[in-house]
Amino acid sequence: MPAETPRPDFAVLNHEMRTPLNAILGFAQMLLWDDEAPLPAKQREMVEHIQKGGEDLLALMDAWAEAQSR
Amino acid sequence: MPAETPRPDFAVLNHEMRTPLNAILGFAQMLLWDDEAPLPAKQREMVEHIQKGGEDLLALMDAWAEAQSR
Repeated sequence: MPAETPRPDFAVLNHEMRTPLNAILGFAQMLLWDDEAPLPAKQREMVEHIQKGGEDLLALMDAWAEAQSR
Repeated sequence: MPAETPRPDFAVLNHEMRTPLNAILGFAQMLLWDDEAPLPAKQREMVEHIQKGGEDLLALMDAWAEAQSR
């Protein structure tokens, strides 16, 4: 980030993080919901861990955004 | 978050986000590297999107942590 860039506030980060986070959650869901080519149990479990990680990130960001707005 | 909780700083959020983010990146890598049960091309592509999302999140957090420390 160039030196002249103003220090960003959390709202900007929060907003920018939503796009990759939605991609993670969306593709994890697609992998889990694909009835035509269901994943083997072991791989399904890994995708479920990914989904859980994405949900945890979202919860952290939401809690933090709320704390910042107090 | 209870009302008496002090407003957290970004270092805390940054730290707390690493665990779920590492889970996302680690499991995506395991899915992509599993030579014994390689994913079909379509599903592999979805996991690559997940991996890309995780890397983007990490880059955003790093850039933000650096900007905060200036």
